[in-house]
Amino acid sequence: MSATPAPSDTGPRGEGAARLAATERARTLVEPELRSAVASLEPGLGRAVGYHLGWYEADGSPAEAGSGKSVRPALTLMAAAAMGAEPRAALPGAAAVELVHNFSLVHDDVMDGDAYRRHRPTLWKTFGVPTAILAGDALQSLAFITLARHEGPHTARATRCLSHTLIELATGQTLDMAFARRPWRGPKAVTVPEYRRMAEAKSGSLLGCAAEIGAILGGAPATISRAFGRAGRHLGLAFQCVDDIIGLWGDPRRTGKPVLSDLRERKKTLPFLAALAARSPASRELAGHLSASALDDAALARAAVLVEEAGGRRFTEREAEHHLTRGLACLDGVGLPEAARAEFRALIDFLAERTS
Amino acid sequence: MSATPAPSDTGPRGEGAARLAATERARTLVEPELRSAVASLEPGLGRAVGYHLGWYEADGSPAEAGSGKSVRPALTLMAAAAMGAEPRAALPGAAAVELVHNFSLVHDDVMDGDAYRRHRPTLWKTFGVPTAILAGDALQSLAFITLARHEGPHTARATRCLSHTLIELATGQTLDMAFARRPWRGPKAVTVPEYRRMAEAKSGSLLGCAAEIGAILGGAPATISRAFGRAGRHLGLAFQCVDDIIGLWGDPRRTGKPVLSDLRERKKTLPFLAALAARSPASRELAGHLSASALDDAALARAAVLVEEAGGRRFTEREAEHHLTRGLACLDGVGLPEAARAEFRALIDFLAERTS
Repeated sequence: MSATPAPSDTGPRGEGAARLAATERARTLVEPELRSAVASLEPGLGRAVGYHLGWYEADGSPAEAGSGKSVRPALTLMAAAAMGAEPRAALPGAAAVELVHNFSLVHDDVMDGDAYRRHRPTLWKTFGVPTAILAGDALQSLAFITLARHEGPHTARATRCLSHTLIELATGQTLDMAFARRPWRGPKAVTVPEYRRMAEAKSGSLLGCAAEIGAILGGAPATISRAFGRAGRHLGLAFQCVDDIIGLWGDPRRTGKPVLSDLRERKKTLPFLAALAARSPASRELAGHLSASALDDAALARAAVLVEEAGGRRFTEREAEHHLTRGLACLDGVGLPEAARAEFRALIDFLAERTS
Repeated sequence: MSATPAPSDTGPRGEGAARLAATERARTLVEPELRSAVASLEPGLGRAVGYHLGWYEADGSPAEAGSGKSVRPALTLMAAAAMGAEPRAALPGAAAVELVHNFSLVHDDVMDGDAYRRHRPTLWKTFGVPTAILAGDALQSLAFITLARHEGPHTARATRCLSHTLIELATGQTLDMAFARRPWRGPKAVTVPEYRRMAEAKSGSLLGCAAEIGAILGGAPATISRAFGRAGRHLGLAFQCVDDIIGLWGDPRRTGKPVLSDLRERKKTLPFLAALAARSPASRELAGHLSASALDDAALARAAVLVEEAGGRRFTEREAEHHLTRGLACLDGVGLPEAARAEFRALIDFLAERTS
């Protein structure tokens, strides 16, 4: 299974990570919405959700563990601002997108058996699988409540956008789980185009929704909100490429995961698939390693070198650059004010340069 | 853990169960909506969802396994009809409620470790826990898509009703799971009032939503739609009482579950809690049985007799009657046409007399 889009959301607040005014602002604005939504849950369930969000320790005492970088709400608020709307107009959308993001993290961690996230044991590891299932369910429902609570002229369109994104997320995770059961080589191996389809559904769709829902709530007509959606989708795909690179070569002190974590779990991420597709001597040696039943630390380190030698890292970096360029190009036709364009540019640089 | 509201939804179509024109009609109307919703899923995921709904066998071949009695959609359509609306107006609500019902069944079966439903292995038993989590997630999302797809003047209110119900369902399941960890006797034992709160959240809320959303989409003002919601809530509570009786004394050929299934799983259902609260000699003997680490078939049979002797069955039957009477009384103030009242009466009789 590939990295979820979220290993990026690691680390105590600000530690080892670049800071960006737009994401800091988004977090400040969105957190009260999230807290008010979670407060409506049965207290035991609310504690589990609050643990995942970094607000509480496992025993319910307050924590400052950090709840991610708020890239998606930032994108929502930026899209609304680009339409000349106040942040308040898009805040329900920003909170809903962040709730859906966390819903998918909580359930993906159960499905993938991932034990660590944001430097802490995952929700299911701490509270058990049944509570993690319920917590994810509740996060999905709270997203719709949050949108519906602040009803306005664009709520129905925003709700449609969010619900279709949820189906796409389920498609992405289904494909990702199916990839895990397929071989590394031969006619049944996962191809790069198949990987791209999975990544678009699993990572592109939610950043696309974040941008589109912001434009919708900001009053954009459909042609404009869809352009924002396409831009966000490219950003999401670039985000996933950077994630895949971090999953292999990231610093474990920053990622909160073991070194070479994607390699240890044999996740079929883009650097591997591109390296194997290169059909070079390094590709063939790599395929041998990946098909072995167990790899010691020396073999793991060698495999990471081989992915790089076979061009897997370079390919993934270029793919990220391509999506970042395309993402910005999608906004060319929407007549973005220069200040808004600069904000998007800053977010793109932030996404491209992150290391955790 | 208590029976989910669904053991009722057992049995191939019509087999061993009373038939009711309103539920048959609801199924016929709603099934195309459900099929169209499920068709939008990734094919592998759609097959798993379709298996749960009784449309396919595990291998994807067509099945006629039955997908429940459609009590909830029938209630939605009846409420809309009582407001003078065409079934078409409430159909998205009826389908959404049925999707949410199935979402909760699929996830509850994972959480409760239940292996059988509707005479077949459960979704997670057949396709694995990760696919069952995703299938449930998708069913929840499809409910919102179905509501949003047919946007009308009442969609936002209906969406709010549905999303709040989902939070209540999560509360109910959280409480139910917490009950399983508590002792049968002593100061920490589960009380009848606590049980009622759980049952209202877990079973009352969705039948309440089914009735309320039908009234909303039928154009009812808030005072009227809330009366329908309260009526449905009482029906749901009665439904749970009947379920609890079936879970102990139901015919396994009809329920599709082992004989004395709730007793085998030591579910804290109302007949037990009422019997234990009676403080009679039978109560004390029952408490001893329930606290034993393992029960053979003779002890199980004896425990069921003791529940009856201590008045647990009679108490639960009276509780069901009380809710059915109260449910109908909630509709007294809404000026229901006589034909509509007769339909509700028939549904109530159907619920009270079911045996599976």
